[in-house]
Amino acid sequence: LPRGDCALSRLLRRLLSARRSLELCLFAFSSPQLGRAVQLLHRRGVRVRVVTDAQYMGLRGSQIGLLRRAGIQVRHDQENGYMHHKFAIVDRRMLITGSLNWTTQAIQNNRENLLVMEDAEYVKPFLDEFERIWEEYNPTKYRFFP
Amino acid sequence: LPRGDCALSRLLRRLLSARRSLELCLFAFSSPQLGRAVQLLHRRGVRVRVVTDAQYMGLRGSQIGLLRRAGIQVRHDQENGYMHHKFAIVDRRMLITGSLNWTTQAIQNNRENLLVMEDAEYVKPFLDEFERIWEEYNPTKYRFFP
Repeated sequence: LPRGDCALSRLLRRLLSARRSLELCLFAFSSPQLGRAVQLLHRRGVRVRVVTDAQYMGLRGSQIGLLRRAGIQVRHDQENGYMHHKFAIVDRRMLITGSLNWTTQAIQNNRENLLVMEDAEYVKPFLDEFERIWEEYNPTKYRFFP
Repeated sequence: LPRGDCALSRLLRRLLSARRSLELCLFAFSSPQLGRAVQLLHRRGVRVRVVTDAQYMGLRGSQIGLLRRAGIQVRHDQENGYMHHKFAIVDRRMLITGSLNWTTQAIQNNRENLLVMEDAEYVKPFLDEFERIWEEYNPTKYRFFP
């Protein structure tokens, strides 16, 4: 629940602890600092997968294009509703979730919450949801003429 | 993580279990079903307190005006940033939090998550945040000419 630089540096520290895998399921991702951290993990050999919302992805300031150009796998929804999750899973054992969108506005100016949990009881349903979404948003399944 | 009516009925069941108190800290509240449930709890004598975001509160379909007219205490932010939390605390022991805004759009069409937790370790920081915000948004502290 801390705000601003303190919240950002806590989140960065957790992310940068990843050694093997990072799943990101994010409605909005426009924070440059968080974008750089994710690219750094990718370069270190961490398996990064990103799922995001198609509507938000196209907005100015989105980090998604940069992540894709860096070679990171990204999939997006093709629904009318929003892919409104805002969670990350580090090394399949640490869940980071809450109200916080990964935007500078949210980090600096909003009242937000962010939970960090390592109990399998909480991590497992989010991992399952990630894998479900990852398959559902597989580009080979896109139907352009429904 | 279930969607639609299933998610709504689970959330309603948890809310309606309140016997003494309900704290709501909600960026957006426009679901008529959830609005009716909160009014019902108020009529049953449950102490309901609501904190919300000033920008969203004025939008069409917001339940906040109805809650106020029913005699429920509501306080709102007076900041530029958003009061972006989306959590409820039932009887000071059950925390309901996640990505879900309390809108029909979110319940019916979005991919969302909702965590229900009774561990004091998780409930306490949210209760503390609620009380902090409740005091901070006390109308007697409003400064109209900063």
